[in-house]
Amino acid sequence: MPSFDQIVPLLEQQAIELPSWAFGNSGTRFKVFTQPGVPRDPEEKIADAAKVNEFTGLAPTVALHIPWDKVDDYDKLAGYAADHGVALGTINANTFQDDDYKFGSLAHHDSAVRSKALDHMYECIEIMNATGSRDLKIWLADGTNYPGQGDLRRRQDWLADSLQKVYDRIGDDQRLILEYKFFEPSFYHTDVPDWGTAYAQTLALGDRAKVCLDTGHHAPGTNIEFIVAQLLRLGKLGSFDFNSRFYADDDLIVGAADPFQLFRILHEVISNGGYGTDSDVAFMLDQCHNLEPKIPGQIRSVLTVSEMTARALLVDREALAEAQTAGDVLGANQVLMDAFYTDVRADLADWRVSRGLPADPMAAYTKSGYAEQIVAERIGGSQAGWGA
Amino acid sequence: MPSFDQIVPLLEQQAIELPSWAFGNSGTRFKVFTQPGVPRDPEEKIADAAKVNEFTGLAPTVALHIPWDKVDDYDKLAGYAADHGVALGTINANTFQDDDYKFGSLAHHDSAVRSKALDHMYECIEIMNATGSRDLKIWLADGTNYPGQGDLRRRQDWLADSLQKVYDRIGDDQRLILEYKFFEPSFYHTDVPDWGTAYAQTLALGDRAKVCLDTGHHAPGTNIEFIVAQLLRLGKLGSFDFNSRFYADDDLIVGAADPFQLFRILHEVISNGGYGTDSDVAFMLDQCHNLEPKIPGQIRSVLTVSEMTARALLVDREALAEAQTAGDVLGANQVLMDAFYTDVRADLADWRVSRGLPADPMAAYTKSGYAEQIVAERIGGSQAGWGA
Amino acid sequence: MPSFDQIVPLLEQQAIELPSWAFGNSGTRFKVFTQPGVPRDPEEKIADAAKVNEFTGLAPTVALHIPWDKVDDYDKLAGYAADHGVALGTINANTFQDDDYKFGSLAHHDSAVRSKALDHMYECIEIMNATGSRDLKIWLADGTNYPGQGDLRRRQDWLADSLQKVYDRIGDDQRLILEYKFFEPSFYHTDVPDWGTAYAQTLALGDRAKVCLDTGHHAPGTNIEFIVAQLLRLGKLGSFDFNSRFYADDDLIVGAADPFQLFRILHEVISNGGYGTDSDVAFMLDQCHNLEPKIPGQIRSVLTVSEMTARALLVDREALAEAQTAGDVLGANQVLMDAFYTDVRADLADWRVSRGLPADPMAAYTKSGYAEQIVAERIGGSQAGWGA
Amino acid sequence: MPSFDQIVPLLEQQAIELPSWAFGNSGTRFKVFTQPGVPRDPEEKIADAAKVNEFTGLAPTVALHIPWDKVDDYDKLAGYAADHGVALGTINANTFQDDDYKFGSLAHHDSAVRSKALDHMYECIEIMNATGSRDLKIWLADGTNYPGQGDLRRRQDWLADSLQKVYDRIGDDQRLILEYKFFEPSFYHTDVPDWGTAYAQTLALGDRAKVCLDTGHHAPGTNIEFIVAQLLRLGKLGSFDFNSRFYADDDLIVGAADPFQLFRILHEVISNGGYGTDSDVAFMLDQCHNLEPKIPGQIRSVLTVSEMTARALLVDREALAEAQTAGDVLGANQVLMDAFYTDVRADLADWRVSRGLPADPMAAYTKSGYAEQIVAERIGGSQAGWGA
Repeated sequence: MPSFDQIVPLLEQQAIELPSWAFGNSGTRFKVFTQPGVPRDPEEKIADAAKVNEFTGLAPTVALHIPWDKVDDYDKLAGYAADHGVALGTINANTFQDDDYKFGSLAHHDSAVRSKALDHMYECIEIMNATGSRDLKIWLADGTNYPGQGDLRRRQDWLADSLQKVYDRIGDDQRLILEYKFFEPSFYHTDVPDWGTAYAQTLALGDRAKVCLDTGHHAPGTNIEFIVAQLLRLGKLGSFDFNSRFYADDDLIVGAADPFQLFRILHEVISNGGYGTDSDVAFMLDQCHNLEPKIPGQIRSVLTVSEMTARALLVDREALAEAQTAGDVLGANQVLMDAFYTDVRADLADWRVSRGLPADPMAAYTKSGYAEQIVAERIGGSQAGWGA
Repeated sequence: MPSFDQIVPLLEQQAIELPSWAFGNSGTRFKVFTQPGVPRDPEEKIADAAKVNEFTGLAPTVALHIPWDKVDDYDKLAGYAADHGVALGTINANTFQDDDYKFGSLAHHDSAVRSKALDHMYECIEIMNATGSRDLKIWLADGTNYPGQGDLRRRQDWLADSLQKVYDRIGDDQRLILEYKFFEPSFYHTDVPDWGTAYAQTLALGDRAKVCLDTGHHAPGTNIEFIVAQLLRLGKLGSFDFNSRFYADDDLIVGAADPFQLFRILHEVISNGGYGTDSDVAFMLDQCHNLEPKIPGQIRSVLTVSEMTARALLVDREALAEAQTAGDVLGANQVLMDAFYTDVRADLADWRVSRGLPADPMAAYTKSGYAEQIVAERIGGSQAGWGA
Repeated sequence: MPSFDQIVPLLEQQAIELPSWAFGNSGTRFKVFTQPGVPRDPEEKIADAAKVNEFTGLAPTVALHIPWDKVDDYDKLAGYAADHGVALGTINANTFQDDDYKFGSLAHHDSAVRSKALDHMYECIEIMNATGSRDLKIWLADGTNYPGQGDLRRRQDWLADSLQKVYDRIGDDQRLILEYKFFEPSFYHTDVPDWGTAYAQTLALGDRAKVCLDTGHHAPGTNIEFIVAQLLRLGKLGSFDFNSRFYADDDLIVGAADPFQLFRILHEVISNGGYGTDSDVAFMLDQCHNLEPKIPGQIRSVLTVSEMTARALLVDREALAEAQTAGDVLGANQVLMDAFYTDVRADLADWRVSRGLPADPMAAYTKSGYAEQIVAERIGGSQAGWGA
Repeated sequence: MPSFDQIVPLLEQQAIELPSWAFGNSGTRFKVFTQPGVPRDPEEKIADAAKVNEFTGLAPTVALHIPWDKVDDYDKLAGYAADHGVALGTINANTFQDDDYKFGSLAHHDSAVRSKALDHMYECIEIMNATGSRDLKIWLADGTNYPGQGDLRRRQDWLADSLQKVYDRIGDDQRLILEYKFFEPSFYHTDVPDWGTAYAQTLALGDRAKVCLDTGHHAPGTNIEFIVAQLLRLGKLGSFDFNSRFYADDDLIVGAADPFQLFRILHEVISNGGYGTDSDVAFMLDQCHNLEPKIPGQIRSVLTVSEMTARALLVDREALAEAQTAGDVLGANQVLMDAFYTDVRADLADWRVSRGLPADPMAAYTKSGYAEQIVAERIGGSQAGWGA
């Protein structure tokens, strides 16, 4: 097994993008429990995200969600972010909250609605140009609730046509990232339900079209790390949306439900060229802190990804390959488990201190008084949430 | 196989309760698509529900949801319902939309919150006394999102204690109906997640405590009709919440996802004493018409239940028992399938006409102009939805 | 809705291939319940399959499984089949019952084992050449039981390499059909677990490589008809393995668990060019009659496929498209349901009679005395099963 | 968090029962890969189990499976076990491998078959009396494959009647343990599919009837630790069958699929009185080592249970309760995670050495030469497996 010192250079390459929307209110269809101090505008979201980076050194960029994070001046927003020590990242398109999108957006049967959705995508590309963002992430709520409601095949063709139009607009250094999701908010069929569909659709577009794998978007029992390995093999893994789930798309804190699964995913990422500065696979969080406070929720999340990455980096890949080749089932499994069971928390704390960061970012954040400060300051206005 | 004429007397015993909330707006955490003409108060919901009964003759009662359907004068509301040809039915308690219920209600760790939730239950019982309702239906959103967040065992004890207090308040002719649900809105654990828990909790209370089986509230692959048969055997099936689902608690139109499953459920109901005027099992709908129009959605639903009931009544139970006893796997299965595949739609239309009802309730409703009328009349005010 | 007469020409194009192994003994890991009269050699399996065709007119070909159905003289076997009114069909390769395949076959880490598996494939191609079979169907048990046991990525590369070698051997009129399966007999990972993998692998091979969709090989909640539509759109649907399942790969009689799902699948097949003599999509059964008698089980199966095909052919596609375009959710769904709920059984019986077939094939088979005959005749020898 | 020294007295109370059948051959319906050196009789199974105890000190008893482990003289067998340092434990009844049980055993529709199954149970009780075993464990394969095949309700009544007869025979110090299983080998319905059914059935019997929870016998997404807490609360948790699974009843090594789940289960066991010498909850393994060598597979298993028990014992229950009461979601979760992430392996090794056991039982076993010895010695005869 490598020593912790040996993996430090690799750990230093880790960067996890935070979603601006994680700092706003979120909930279920039954209830959104609001929290005091929640941001009221993109700047406040960025300020909160910057705190996560300040205490962890792991989260240098913030993803925006359009139109939730629309501003008049993106240069200014980028400057604001830079002043807070972070940069703007992926632009996430939203074509699911306008009444026109009731029956879909890029896959809608009505070309007028598709046009409207395309215009939104073009606008997102304009924003990318302004912010210098590399990635346009497209998650579509498109689908149907009842058998017969839509034409499964034609919707796929309309989708392909729409995506082509978007792809034609992105720049040479930009990427179109297509996210798949098993179900919700559509219940009978989803137009991009699985990695196979996202793969087939992005393959038809070209090299700058890639797939986003959200860890919560699979059927029960799905071996997610297999998909990771497969997409890396096919050159199509664009980014991760990390979160965790027990049953559906629960959007819980990454690693909270099954840390061993997160470890296995990261093991495949590392083993297949998806990790580090040489790779263009983006690591993002996509979570909802419905009950827990948002900033600590994000701090915990990036620390967990970092911790599991360290464990995955510790896998003795040579010993693993040897055991695999020998058909030594228990031995090969043990190599993985040994890395997973290694407690890296103290070493990571030392490493953080060596980088000028707090040993215990959670405690440091609590002590900082920032939570109390934003509660006190953010009076009035309208708290950010999924609706705005 | 019995003839259609032979089952008519049984068909006439069918009554399906409609949920007032099905007529309000509903949606997912991503978006609620509103619809024009949606009711703005309990009276308008009742008026809409009465239309379903007017055209189908199958839905004589309306369930209320408190506080969504709170009014000052329940006598007046009952009179309003009677004027429209329907009666008020089950009272559904709601302890999931107040900020205090963030960590639960009847199973909350804080006795003050449990007290508040109990007060709500007592208020519901008062309303039952005013409306003459028999059933208090309790569905709890109680649960936790993360391992460790709550004490699974103590919450169960708190729940038992709370339920006992509610049970002690209901009258001799009233029932406490406890609904279970596999997941959502809690993602790690739910305090009443399965029929076993609902059974154990209601068994501890007494004979007037029963279980509500919502067809959408089970894990994938669960044999629901087995639970129906088991609860009937144990004397604990209080009511059904009918709806259908492909993956989670989709709340789609009953029978839309798997009509054969609905048939099997009704077959067990009929075979085990759960059907007809001699049985106290309540048939209710619990659905969300997120995309489709609400009144037609409800009409379609009660017609489907009626249709599947007719098919289930047609099962040749004697032949079935004979084949079962003979170990004739294919023969026994064929008896069921023969009833399921029998097209009863024309007979049902004739039967409706014979009762002074339209042969085609969907068409008759469309033709009635009611849809246009409510769109025109219900201007201003605040549309009903889950939030109010 | 089209009339039954209108769909008769299409019904006449239906051909369903029977699996020779369905006539042998099968069971679970807990127990194989043997049945008297079960075939002891390929000829007897073919004779039984021919009975299914004799009584239904729907099953003109029999798929062979190698090595279970190995014979010295395939010409003679083909002649035997022809004498019984059927032809030999797909050749199914088996690389999962030799001790060498403990850790896989075409995806094995050891090139010697891959070579052995390739030799088996080449042998199957020789048999295809002898029998005139078009399709080589490859289902692989390859996978691992424990994390770390195998290298997910390298196994995929080995698999690609092996498949290329097989593909290079098949003739211009032959096809390589790759079947995917979610899980079992491997429990941690399967090398071809989903349609995405089967698609990516066959896409790399070329036009004569296609995907086999076994209806029982998906995760819970998967929308199978979507995959059907998608594979047809991508030109990669090679064949169906029909069966049904409640939970895992139960291999029950097609349509027994969810007839509406079978209807939806056939609707997509028909709507997207996968049906009829112009299409090269093969319809096969892949079932295990663990408890029920085998020949009646197969008769029932082909009748069910025929029945559901008839219902799916009855869908008023024009009305459907119109309702879809109008955003009429309930109307579009109703068009599908109307076809599904139409009882075609009497019309199908008449149609069979018009073709010189029995109105009720199940009864006719029972009456024929064949079941008793094979029990009496097939004394001694070793009954066919999965092991031989 | 308690120190390791503080939990040592509790660790010393751990005893894990081994299943004799884990040492025989096992596999899937597709193939059983045999292994050299596998036992050929009960004595050799006991000898192998004793090795697991010799190297771990954790597995002092062996469960027998009847008729697989039938012998003429149980006194002698018990003596043989004692000579090898272990004792005989739970008696597992088997009513699923006789042809008469094709349609069930204790729940069969035919009273003659039920009688036969009862006779087997009585025989098991005689064996218990001879071996001094406390527990009769009943897992039933009873169920059906097709809707209609059996009468769900009557089978439940027959089952209740059968169980009552068995219960009436067990001694005052003996227990009837009823195991539930979600599916397999029956695919449509299982007569004891869930904890609710096992609870209702054993509740009807009396205090000495308890439930066995096999960790692999649940629907996807089921919160197993909730059931653990609930059964302990209801006084009905009799024993565990530990194993792990990714999708179905995979019977993999406990903790191999989701170690965090195993930790949570043990946390509930410990928190609710199910652990230690004061508790009568039995810890057993029920696994199949299809690919890996059996004795090392069992050693690994008991070590994993021990390791996860240590982590669960380290939970700071006071801090946990405090955080729960404070509604501190992240804090409460962190208390659990801190214990889970603590690497106890070195401490456990020291503890083993202090007890005169090897620090590394896996290595010590490998070095012992026992594996080679049994391969050399066990020549001829018939290897044990599920069939005999």
